[in-house]
Amino acid sequence: MELKEEMVSQQTVYEGIIVNVRRDKARLLDGRITNREVVEHPGGVAIFAMDTQENVFLVRQYRYPMGEVVLELPAGKLEKGENPREAGLRELEEETGLIPGTFLPMGCSYSSPGIFAEKIYLFFAEDLKQGPVHPDDGEFVETVKIPFSELMDMVRRGEIRDGKSLAGILKASLLLEERKK
Amino acid sequence: MELKEEMVSQQTVYEGIIVNVRRDKARLLDGRITNREVVEHPGGVAIFAMDTQENVFLVRQYRYPMGEVVLELPAGKLEKGENPREAGLRELEEETGLIPGTFLPMGCSYSSPGIFAEKIYLFFAEDLKQGPVHPDDGEFVETVKIPFSELMDMVRRGEIRDGKSLAGILKASLLLEERKK
Repeated sequence: MELKEEMVSQQTVYEGIIVNVRRDKARLLDGRITNREVVEHPGGVAIFAMDTQENVFLVRQYRYPMGEVVLELPAGKLEKGENPREAGLRELEEETGLIPGTFLPMGCSYSSPGIFAEKIYLFFAEDLKQGPVHPDDGEFVETVKIPFSELMDMVRRGEIRDGKSLAGILKASLLLEERKK
Repeated sequence: MELKEEMVSQQTVYEGIIVNVRRDKARLLDGRITNREVVEHPGGVAIFAMDTQENVFLVRQYRYPMGEVVLELPAGKLEKGENPREAGLRELEEETGLIPGTFLPMGCSYSSPGIFAEKIYLFFAEDLKQGPVHPDDGEFVETVKIPFSELMDMVRRGEIRDGKSLAGILKASLLLEERKK
């Protein structure tokens, strides 16, 4: 069985600051037509940056939609026409001031593929040089440096709750494990 | 510095099938007022279910917003008034027919905390009994059983791209590692 739904019609029902919402008609596998609500998003990047002492750089930030401070990998949205690698290097430097000598892609994470079309491109950064921080206007971010083993304990204790960060930590931990072999 | 933004006003600008969108005014740390766009979502669950041979149950499903088939942990939305544990047991049974003897919470994953308010509650299910499958109307889902070590290789190869699944796999791998100590 080929799992596929065909788009029948597309309609933008909300045009927003960051997201747009579409309400499409789609043909299901059994031929029936259904509504599919899609939240469009430009996509983003998240960076697992580690220094030579195995410290990982995270950012603390108030996340208005969640009503709390969230600890995350440095991350941000793709700007118009920007490729993921450029965006990753830009966001890492803006938020932490770090300029990596090595910058490896670690694939993608889909934030909520049933409704929200955001794709996050994950990167591993190392051979880091520290420069000045350039936060976006209206962005209040604190950088923290956490030893990798302590970060894994924080994941165990539920202190890392951001999805893209959990995805990036899993990918990075597999990459680091591979290297130790 | 206390990182907090105060809500000044709230306005719902889109009421949808699954999500609503608000456009709020918020007071930043420096006193300025800014727009905050928030996509409201009821929240969801995702379940890492493992049998006694260390096989993990995943579901393959066409995800219309991504335009592709995505391999994910069994998952779904919270229904009105439903608590995460009930929803987790219900979704696992609907999608895979599995009834777990043990069902452990593994914390939360925030899908995209800068804009999308979805919280995913993660569970670890074991001592599984197989019953009949009950997919939601209009849901076409294939269940697959993948050995845990093969699943980790799939993560390495970028074949698992769903964020909640990557988060759940990380949490479950830490839990399994803990048990082996």
